[in-house]
Amino acid sequence: MAHRVPRFITDFFVYETAKSVVVKSWSVGIINRVVQLLIILYFICWVFMHEKGHQQRDTGIESAVMSKVKGLGKFNNRVMDVADYVVPSQGGSSFSVITSMVITANQTQGRCPETDPKFKCTTDDECMAKLGSNLGNGIITGTCLNNNNETTGWCEIEGWCPAEDDTVSGKPMKEVENFTIFVKNSIRFPLFNVTRGNFPSSLNQSYIQSCHYDSVDDPFCPIFKVGDILRHINQSFDSITDKGGEIGININWKCNLDYNVMYCNPNYFFTRLDAAFKNSAASKGYNFRFAKYYQSEDGTEHRTLHKAKAIRFEIIVSGNVGRLYSPKCYKAAYVTYGLATVFCDIILLNFHKGADEYKAKKFEEVSGIVSESANNRLYEGSQMSLKALEKRSNDSGTFSIGRQDPSNQ
Amino acid sequence: MAHRVPRFITDFFVYETAKSVVVKSWSVGIINRVVQLLIILYFICWVFMHEKGHQQRDTGIESAVMSKVKGLGKFNNRVMDVADYVVPSQGGSSFSVITSMVITANQTQGRCPETDPKFKCTTDDECMAKLGSNLGNGIITGTCLNNNNETTGWCEIEGWCPAEDDTVSGKPMKEVENFTIFVKNSIRFPLFNVTRGNFPSSLNQSYIQSCHYDSVDDPFCPIFKVGDILRHINQSFDSITDKGGEIGININWKCNLDYNVMYCNPNYFFTRLDAAFKNSAASKGYNFRFAKYYQSEDGTEHRTLHKAKAIRFEIIVSGNVGRLYSPKCYKAAYVTYGLATVFCDIILLNFHKGADEYKAKKFEEVSGIVSESANNRLYEGSQMSLKALEKRSNDSGTFSIGRQDPSNQ
Amino acid sequence: MAHRVPRFITDFFVYETAKSVVVKSWSVGIINRVVQLLIILYFICWVFMHEKGHQQRDTGIESAVMSKVKGLGKFNNRVMDVADYVVPSQGGSSFSVITSMVITANQTQGRCPETDPKFKCTTDDECMAKLGSNLGNGIITGTCLNNNNETTGWCEIEGWCPAEDDTVSGKPMKEVENFTIFVKNSIRFPLFNVTRGNFPSSLNQSYIQSCHYDSVDDPFCPIFKVGDILRHINQSFDSITDKGGEIGININWKCNLDYNVMYCNPNYFFTRLDAAFKNSAASKGYNFRFAKYYQSEDGTEHRTLHKAKAIRFEIIVSGNVGRLYSPKCYKAAYVTYGLATVFCDIILLNFHKGADEYKAKKFEEVSGIVSESANNRLYEGSQMSLKALEKRSNDSGTFSIGRQDPSNQ
Repeated sequence: MAHRVPRFITDFFVYETAKSVVVKSWSVGIINRVVQLLIILYFICWVFMHEKGHQQRDTGIESAVMSKVKGLGKFNNRVMDVADYVVPSQGGSSFSVITSMVITANQTQGRCPETDPKFKCTTDDECMAKLGSNLGNGIITGTCLNNNNETTGWCEIEGWCPAEDDTVSGKPMKEVENFTIFVKNSIRFPLFNVTRGNFPSSLNQSYIQSCHYDSVDDPFCPIFKVGDILRHINQSFDSITDKGGEIGININWKCNLDYNVMYCNPNYFFTRLDAAFKNSAASKGYNFRFAKYYQSEDGTEHRTLHKAKAIRFEIIVSGNVGRLYSPKCYKAAYVTYGLATVFCDIILLNFHKGADEYKAKKFEEVSGIVSESANNRLYEGSQMSLKALEKRSNDSGTFSIGRQDPSNQ
Repeated sequence: MAHRVPRFITDFFVYETAKSVVVKSWSVGIINRVVQLLIILYFICWVFMHEKGHQQRDTGIESAVMSKVKGLGKFNNRVMDVADYVVPSQGGSSFSVITSMVITANQTQGRCPETDPKFKCTTDDECMAKLGSNLGNGIITGTCLNNNNETTGWCEIEGWCPAEDDTVSGKPMKEVENFTIFVKNSIRFPLFNVTRGNFPSSLNQSYIQSCHYDSVDDPFCPIFKVGDILRHINQSFDSITDKGGEIGININWKCNLDYNVMYCNPNYFFTRLDAAFKNSAASKGYNFRFAKYYQSEDGTEHRTLHKAKAIRFEIIVSGNVGRLYSPKCYKAAYVTYGLATVFCDIILLNFHKGADEYKAKKFEEVSGIVSESANNRLYEGSQMSLKALEKRSNDSGTFSIGRQDPSNQ
Repeated sequence: MAHRVPRFITDFFVYETAKSVVVKSWSVGIINRVVQLLIILYFICWVFMHEKGHQQRDTGIESAVMSKVKGLGKFNNRVMDVADYVVPSQGGSSFSVITSMVITANQTQGRCPETDPKFKCTTDDECMAKLGSNLGNGIITGTCLNNNNETTGWCEIEGWCPAEDDTVSGKPMKEVENFTIFVKNSIRFPLFNVTRGNFPSSLNQSYIQSCHYDSVDDPFCPIFKVGDILRHINQSFDSITDKGGEIGININWKCNLDYNVMYCNPNYFFTRLDAAFKNSAASKGYNFRFAKYYQSEDGTEHRTLHKAKAIRFEIIVSGNVGRLYSPKCYKAAYVTYGLATVFCDIILLNFHKGADEYKAKKFEEVSGIVSESANNRLYEGSQMSLKALEKRSNDSGTFSIGRQDPSNQ
């Protein structure tokens, strides 16, 4: 040809692909297809149906929770309603139901003795040593209020007086067991733009006013009885009201959006959130302090301090939805094919009757290439193709377990 | 050689690699390169530029939200300011703006008739049947307060009296539409240690005091007018104040940290969070009850109960930032090369003029290896290389669609 | 054979595998094994030990936080305790500690002059122009309260009177530095069903009552001193109490569940969450308004408005636990083998003495297959195997850098 195409261009437009060995053998062929079938079954049953490996998953949910507690209890001979015992009142995803309170009424700013045993004293020096303590009900003044030479007195504090004496506690409000919690949870999966509520629109008013959640009979009822929740987590009412505690109401959305979105409904389960601390000597339970402030006609302020033991409910929403994602299917198909090849090579190279022939075909040997001169390269090439028959490999790609050199026979 | 190296050591230090077939053909070479180019373009345009497949992503954000509502409204002829209508007051990511209230003033503990229609009665027996109900305003005593033989009376309750009559409701505070919500959101992506605020430091005081968010004109203004939000989600003010509702202010950080971090700014969008329940017969809207407690000079406590219909705002922050991650690039390059090979093999083996020669070179046939004896293996080997020319494959790696046996011609 | 198996069945049961070239060369074999060793070391040290690439990870944690602040301070000559300065009171993951307040006592509904400089006026017209403003303390009536022809007066407002004058501020409560925050965090990893608390059960009551968190000496103490936190984030107490601020207490659970779960303990670190806004001219710091409501004997309501500057604490829990996941190990092994092959091919094809022989064996050339007739295919086939010795590739799979054609020598 007159106008030769430059070498680097012809080199660029070559196509390179792997050379394959094709084994025409009934036994190996059948093993190959059976292994492929098993792997396909594994993918279908485990990876696809159980693990949902072919789906794109979204766990970054946008969730909104509204809650409403209903019930009436009696504490200290007073009837308590929702506005009295639910804190905070707005009905969000985290709220506390007060079960008992230590009420210290009519506190005003002033000076008075401590009530905590840590602040017992006989002399002022003992109280001076406790200046700056954060553990009392007020600021330690350094004086020991020790009436008329009695052996024990109490350090004087400055602050809200009289000081709270939290050893006096009323009986817990036992009606809490019958309280109900209505939960409204709407959820959105931004990746798929799907919005769902935690109960079907078809539930009617009268059902919702009377039903109680039960995992078997009423799985869609969004109303939970406190006593039922405690039974689910194997806690007695006394054990949780003794010190207070924290309960998680988990709403778990695990949906397969390849089906109709109507089937995307949540599961509920319950946990005692402070279970990790149940063996802890220090700081069991859950309580908090709040005050109601009043003003007298003369303008002086006084308050009623409440130390409330409560059950805190946390409504925890988690979501994990999936929808078919074709690239994941291709990947699975590719892996299936690759795994079958690896498995069949192991069989062929080690356990099959014709293993040596197979090795001879699969592996072409190039030996001593560094010692050959460039001149006899062609000859050397044809030599190599004869040597190709005697090859054994224990390399990592395809494991040859039993070693037997055909050339030694 | 006198000192032979043991066989297992020489076997260990062999190197095994795939044998390739190189096709020198203009048409195939060009097809190969064109397909590689198309795949590279796909990766650049779709995987890299659109899906950001070459980036390491972080969605586990640390976010802090402060909010501040401004505005003045009138309800029941009283001027309401922020301290009156925002609950809770601290300005976090979730807060309610009260739009109307049923106020039941001067409640004290005692006994009085119910007000709920469910508790109408003519005889005590009807009320005895409702003992233990959680649905009333107080504990049912079992007495029917049926003045002077009237046909209908009300069950007596024990609790806060008088009972709330929530059929009487004031007109909603229409000024809420003009209220503004100032949102300060700082965000940190722990994986990349990048911290950002939702508005640039360059915004000055006067702009921030006068601007209102607009997706086109003021996309960086962090102040949202309630009326604007309602318009964005196609809700009328009446439809949301009728029963109360829940609105999500979504702050979405989707950033490419390969650019200057200055360009990492959030997008805002709005959703009606309780939309999932809009067709639900039961429990529409959003309301909650709270009480203000007062003490008379004689020490008796009374309270004012508020049943508040409100708009609850939830500020939902989501983040998804990415930064170049070189291993992902390598993977893409590898996939590009592999896909081009698969595609070209399909072309070559099926549609190309020299398909049969190509098959003969690519596939080397090993047949009947189980029936051969070990003795004539060398001979068999050379036979096989001749047979290698006649090979057809319809295997899964490279699909051969049309079947034509060259040896039959 | 009498009964021939149909062709498509025999074609189906063939087994196809890649043909390999085995190089018996000390130098290449050693390079191959050394490279594999390096890659294995990389995987062991970096991917496995540092990045934990062999583990299945769970970041979707279920966390519950309880907090309790302790400490006593003095503000405006009044002793403040927890019920006074912590909002909200329930001890959750987000709470504010008030450091100073602007207190406007005895507000009642009525009309009075504004206090904000923006509402200074000399004529009613100026106030009429400000009708509908949301920035004042009440609804602008449009009247300028300009006593006796003075040059400046204030616009009249309708609302809670007297209006708040927030230029008068008390000195911040300096004792806040000594306040302590006790944090109880229980966490559950649903994927592995592991539950942990943030301090060991073995900590006894007296230690917990006296310890303060220190990253070196007391890493398990769950009690944080506000002053210590400020030191950790390099903030002075004055800088944060001046305007208020927001601090994150991050609890980071990074656990390797392949070890005993006893070793799964959290790390704490602290951030100034509003750091992103530190250079912002507008809206620094953190404050909020709340009111205490009182009722006089005659039934009129009055309130005390508080504008509180506060430090808001957000306890942010993040988790990232891993446990051995065998498929990830297989993948790593596979990648190790593949990378070594790619690397050795590059060495062999470019820098090795016998590179040309190696190329001749690895690459088999098929050229001009489109121009050959079907008749001389067998001959052509054997020709090709001779040509196979002269092959050069600069293809993407294995890069040949220096180009040298052996056939030209």
